[in-house]
Amino acid sequence: MTSNLEALKKHLGKIMDLKAANNLLSWDQQVNLPPESGEARAEQLSTLTSMAHSLFVSDETGELLEKAAPEVADLPYESDDAALVRVTRREYERQRRIPEELVAEKARAAATGFGAWVKAREASDFGQFQPHLEHILDLTIEYAEALGYEDQRYDALLDLYEPDMKTARVAEIFGELKEGLVPLVQKIEERGAAVDDSVLQKTYPDQDQWDFGLEILRDIGFDFDHGRQDRAAHPFTVGFAPEDVRITTRIYPDQLQSGLFGTIHEGGHALYEQGIRSEIGRTPLFDGVSYGVHESQSRLWENVVARSFEFWKHYFPALQERFPDQLEGVDLTTFHRAINKVEPSLIRVEADEVTYNLHIFVRFEIEQKLIAEEMEVADLPGVWNEKMNEYLGIVPDDDANGVLQDVHWSHGYFGYFPSYALGNLLSVQFYNQALKDLPNLPQQIENGGFDDLLHWLREEIHSHGKKFTPTELVERVTGGPMSAEPFLQYVREKYGAIYQL
Amino acid sequence: MTSNLEALKKHLGKIMDLKAANNLLSWDQQVNLPPESGEARAEQLSTLTSMAHSLFVSDETGELLEKAAPEVADLPYESDDAALVRVTRREYERQRRIPEELVAEKARAAATGFGAWVKAREASDFGQFQPHLEHILDLTIEYAEALGYEDQRYDALLDLYEPDMKTARVAEIFGELKEGLVPLVQKIEERGAAVDDSVLQKTYPDQDQWDFGLEILRDIGFDFDHGRQDRAAHPFTVGFAPEDVRITTRIYPDQLQSGLFGTIHEGGHALYEQGIRSEIGRTPLFDGVSYGVHESQSRLWENVVARSFEFWKHYFPALQERFPDQLEGVDLTTFHRAINKVEPSLIRVEADEVTYNLHIFVRFEIEQKLIAEEMEVADLPGVWNEKMNEYLGIVPDDDANGVLQDVHWSHGYFGYFPSYALGNLLSVQFYNQALKDLPNLPQQIENGGFDDLLHWLREEIHSHGKKFTPTELVERVTGGPMSAEPFLQYVREKYGAIYQL
Repeated sequence: MTSNLEALKKHLGKIMDLKAANNLLSWDQQVNLPPESGEARAEQLSTLTSMAHSLFVSDETGELLEKAAPEVADLPYESDDAALVRVTRREYERQRRIPEELVAEKARAAATGFGAWVKAREASDFGQFQPHLEHILDLTIEYAEALGYEDQRYDALLDLYEPDMKTARVAEIFGELKEGLVPLVQKIEERGAAVDDSVLQKTYPDQDQWDFGLEILRDIGFDFDHGRQDRAAHPFTVGFAPEDVRITTRIYPDQLQSGLFGTIHEGGHALYEQGIRSEIGRTPLFDGVSYGVHESQSRLWENVVARSFEFWKHYFPALQERFPDQLEGVDLTTFHRAINKVEPSLIRVEADEVTYNLHIFVRFEIEQKLIAEEMEVADLPGVWNEKMNEYLGIVPDDDANGVLQDVHWSHGYFGYFPSYALGNLLSVQFYNQALKDLPNLPQQIENGGFDDLLHWLREEIHSHGKKFTPTELVERVTGGPMSAEPFLQYVREKYGAIYQL
Repeated sequence: MTSNLEALKKHLGKIMDLKAANNLLSWDQQVNLPPESGEARAEQLSTLTSMAHSLFVSDETGELLEKAAPEVADLPYESDDAALVRVTRREYERQRRIPEELVAEKARAAATGFGAWVKAREASDFGQFQPHLEHILDLTIEYAEALGYEDQRYDALLDLYEPDMKTARVAEIFGELKEGLVPLVQKIEERGAAVDDSVLQKTYPDQDQWDFGLEILRDIGFDFDHGRQDRAAHPFTVGFAPEDVRITTRIYPDQLQSGLFGTIHEGGHALYEQGIRSEIGRTPLFDGVSYGVHESQSRLWENVVARSFEFWKHYFPALQERFPDQLEGVDLTTFHRAINKVEPSLIRVEADEVTYNLHIFVRFEIEQKLIAEEMEVADLPGVWNEKMNEYLGIVPDDDANGVLQDVHWSHGYFGYFPSYALGNLLSVQFYNQALKDLPNLPQQIENGGFDDLLHWLREEIHSHGKKFTPTELVERVTGGPMSAEPFLQYVREKYGAIYQL
């Protein structure tokens, strides 16, 4: 006789397959889609999204969860099966709170809103996007109300990306971070001339960049038997199963750092999903713990590892060999400084690892006000520019490089941005712990050895998938709570040396 | 108020979206899949196939068809809506006859059988495949019984690929064809030395072949805004919507004809699906009339057009320009003969257009006996070799080049092979009709002009999708029934000239 748990797994497996197919439709849309096939693809995406959703929030799921519960009641908290029922039930209860009609309307508004955002950004005209954003915001507020919250409405949205995280706690962490970062950025700015990154803006042929990226991906452990890399206008990572995790990259011949670190960034995300154990690969546990923890893995590889001096002690000779003309007479120190240049800039995704977080503060503060209905959408461009001036000391000339730069709000992703900064903090907390457990790590990296680090990440983080909450995971791995201090110490040390502060 | 017809269309639209997603999973499996992702993909394919099937054979579909029927009762036979209800109901009633359990078991047996076939072929050992094939055959017979038939069991299977076609009628057509072909092949063989195709076996670099193929695809009307070409080990065409039809090709640097005519062949299939009107693109009418009619489109372009003298009068100078060393001193007549060399060979997919049909006779006769249980699977290799000797005068050295060469039976596709030969016959019948309506066609082709021919095919065949039965379509287009005579006349004339018979 099949157990109730087996029946639940079978049911969830079907839903996971539908989601994988939906993810493939989306991957293909961004990687392969013929120019005029967009409408047909939108229909297909909409059908599969709604079928997966309906099946998941169906009474059947509830009944299967109910029946399976006694079978896992005596299992340890961290067992696969107990976690499966616990995590699935949490998600089920959350999604059941949203009326189907609201789900559909939000999806429609996002589809239309995204199109409007693309056009508005091209025209650099916020006015075109404003009515769409107003509608999306209304629906998002309705969505947050349906989800419910204890303290503030923004909590309900934050929880979608960082389970159990509270707005007040984010504000507290960001407060600490701000206090440390703002004076550091000022000091660095005063010594701005100390770093010259013009070496990165020579001409680096596309194919050579691609090949060098592949070499690094292989070295850090990206498994090309269980994944692949393609090109996309906006790089992303998607996993259909732990055995099929795909990354995308974008290469500019005149900006070496963009493709290179973008590739490693997505590689970090992919290592997370490739590292989730196959046993839970066709269940809702095949996912990151949170967006922040996911981001911690991309940032750990992109910044903490691949922007370190040790890393380039190993790779710079190979890079010079591949680009002999471009890097003739350039020394390792100059190169390492170039890839770590700190400079306030307008665009978040191009920001260095120090000023990046300031961009998040701008968005976090604005989002809270919008969701709390303490601010009008119409006032967004003005407020945006004020906050950019406050945090980064620069103001965009136009909406395209300002308030229209991010896609997130057009999709209704309010509450997402904080995860980026939390990911930065966690990347350092996790790396510090790895360093405690593997004191030899810097020497290994200097020798191009990443196996121990990857193995450590697999054991401590990747293999578990979504089994724990972020709070639980951070506590398990680092022995303490999430905190800004380790990151601040890391940037003070690193940039103190680079900028001779 | 929404009409019942609208409700039916919405329901079928969802099923079409599921099928499109399933087709994408399959396309991606053959084009992109990382080496060790096969199992996860098989699960996803199985889930989506069975969901699309369940939804289609659900009572809901039956009720919606029932309710929509009165709304189309007074519409003309060829109206989109009348055809939608008629064709969908036919398919619904057929699929409802198959028990769900049999559908699932056949899918499992095919999945396992395919794996076993791959290994058996690698080992060239029919014995490894035999028990799988026996199981697949049993299930296929059960399937045919469930479908039902009037005269013979094989009819039920044939009908899956050629609606309304009967085994007796195929045997009659093939009889005529055989009577004409066998003496023709003998005469050609006697003059075998007249054609030398060694020019095709020089080294033709992959990228140049690919680029030349793209040029022809564009010229004949393949729309790259509504489709794309990729690489695959076994070339195929798949359409997700008329706006997204994809072909694949395989290029061998030492065999010019393989990639070149393979590309045009798939291009012909794709032109059919790109030409189906958008209005019926998200309904069950988005499909070819039959496998034979689909094949007629690929063969028309591959053979009747692209192996004609006129075609190469236009393209040979461009080909020479692209491959100056390989084609130095080769004249048009030599090249045209080389690509039309007739020679009995072991492998169906590599056969010329004359001997190709003989390969089909071998399979058609064997399949009938297997399905009628007049022959044991264990006797297959022996019977195969006998029939090869009878029709082609050659016998394979091993199973890999004999009875194990085709994938079809491993999937349970019994009844499929006749469509290949019927496609050859129809390609000539359709082209002859086009020539009647557009007497200028050969001159146009000589000038690289394909617009009128494509337009004619669109009007007469492509645009209708699956609206008619093959019998209806052939009658509408040519004014008469399917027949072997036009094909025989075509090969007698063409090869009479080439081989100076």
